[in-house]
Amino acid sequence: MRLVKRIAQLRKTIISAKRRGKKIGLVPTMGYLHEGHLSLVRLARRKCDFLVVSIFVNPAQFGAKEDLKKYPRDLSRDLKLLKKEKVDLVFNPLAREMYRDGHQTYVEVVDWSKLMCGASRPIHFRGVTTVVLKLFNTIEPDLAVFGSKDYQQAVIIKKMVKDLDLRVKIVTGKIVREKDGLAMSSRNKYLSKVQRKNAVVLYNSLKWSRRAYIEGLRDPKLAVNKMASMIKEKQGKIDYIALVDKNTLEPVKKLRKGTLVALAVFFGKTRLIDNTTL
Amino acid sequence: MRLVKRIAQLRKTIISAKRRGKKIGLVPTMGYLHEGHLSLVRLARRKCDFLVVSIFVNPAQFGAKEDLKKYPRDLSRDLKLLKKEKVDLVFNPLAREMYRDGHQTYVEVVDWSKLMCGASRPIHFRGVTTVVLKLFNTIEPDLAVFGSKDYQQAVIIKKMVKDLDLRVKIVTGKIVREKDGLAMSSRNKYLSKVQRKNAVVLYNSLKWSRRAYIEGLRDPKLAVNKMASMIKEKQGKIDYIALVDKNTLEPVKKLRKGTLVALAVFFGKTRLIDNTTL
Repeated sequence: MRLVKRIAQLRKTIISAKRRGKKIGLVPTMGYLHEGHLSLVRLARRKCDFLVVSIFVNPAQFGAKEDLKKYPRDLSRDLKLLKKEKVDLVFNPLAREMYRDGHQTYVEVVDWSKLMCGASRPIHFRGVTTVVLKLFNTIEPDLAVFGSKDYQQAVIIKKMVKDLDLRVKIVTGKIVREKDGLAMSSRNKYLSKVQRKNAVVLYNSLKWSRRAYIEGLRDPKLAVNKMASMIKEKQGKIDYIALVDKNTLEPVKKLRKGTLVALAVFFGKTRLIDNTTL
Repeated sequence: MRLVKRIAQLRKTIISAKRRGKKIGLVPTMGYLHEGHLSLVRLARRKCDFLVVSIFVNPAQFGAKEDLKKYPRDLSRDLKLLKKEKVDLVFNPLAREMYRDGHQTYVEVVDWSKLMCGASRPIHFRGVTTVVLKLFNTIEPDLAVFGSKDYQQAVIIKKMVKDLDLRVKIVTGKIVREKDGLAMSSRNKYLSKVQRKNAVVLYNSLKWSRRAYIEGLRDPKLAVNKMASMIKEKQGKIDYIALVDKNTLEPVKKLRKGTLVALAVFFGKTRLIDNTTL
């Protein structure tokens, strides 16, 4: 497994792999890897010949008051984990390598980037799509794998690919959960013991929505109210609870099969997201 | 010479040309071709094996009150001219082929797109960079040729290429002028006889600035004032006269070798641009 820090070096290696007819796969991450990431790596490994994992805590997707500086990092542990998964190349650039002096070009999926997570994080998705497009341009992967916990992110990236005529195939992996149901996230590390326990309510409220739908609930407002009260009982501060079309992210008037139930909730200063489909 | 309307068909043809080891060149145009365009086509022809010219009046770069609908078009004449230049493929998509239902992804060189032409045309360069990126993604040209009359456009496209790690080489051609010095433009067609005569003042004011610089003028304000009075005398309504660094587009405090002198002026409803470097 090679560790590469420079775009030019990465490019060289990729060109050589392409010349040898290799199918290139990419899993973009911010590092501090958990089983969720590793499940994506395994999924990508099965579908390509030359697997690149990027580890880059992307400043462009953090707001001024967000956790860029304290975002957890552990490169040597990440590298050990990725070696076990038979990754071919890890790309771990410095911020100034990705955003050179005077960088001012951004790509944005303008409408969907304002919804849901975008409402409280206005530059977040612009930062995500920009860095992902840069990685796509450098690596030219045949496929790229994204997680489903960041469901909106995956929808937005698929839209960018379609609108900009990119030819990479976007594959999504399933959410991986702790034993008690909490979705795995690098940010779970921020939680106190009590918060960690309380945070299971996110999964429980999503499970409740699925069960209620099966039992006949169709009114999205009733669902939101019930979920909100469950979450507040556990000291969660709700950023949003959205019941939307899973393809267009438009709020639904009536719950139906496939409706996306997505939420973002603060426990203390830690913002967690999770989702399910009915 | 092939005429292609569909992205999928274009893609197929390009892939086949690439397989045969062809170096791909692209000249993006909005059609209604004049000698300025043709000089770019000839420049590209000399530098590549497979030459694509796109003809697409790009709605995304026109403001709501601009001349999208009346922008001049003459495809059959354009095709005859391009055939003579031994172009391999003309790509002439419909607007709905380039911007499918629900299109919402845009790329923007955010700072420079606000300056100069961007001040009075706020969405213009966002539209240009978006359509050019789409063409780059579809055609994957080794080189693309742009004119220098749209100097700011060329600077912005080079910046996009750098910031997004694209590998296309951007080549710029020289401004081609009518005998009396007016820069060739598809929009010159809009001018009345009197306006056409008066419009030569743009070139004359640029020539004046070069001469004045050689004779020792260093104050940009004095230069702007003199040029403005020359232009107003000929019923030109000034959008801007800019004396800026040719690489960063920043206003200069003192004229120096290489300073870009650029202007946009209305004659009636017709907005013309031109520029020179000192």
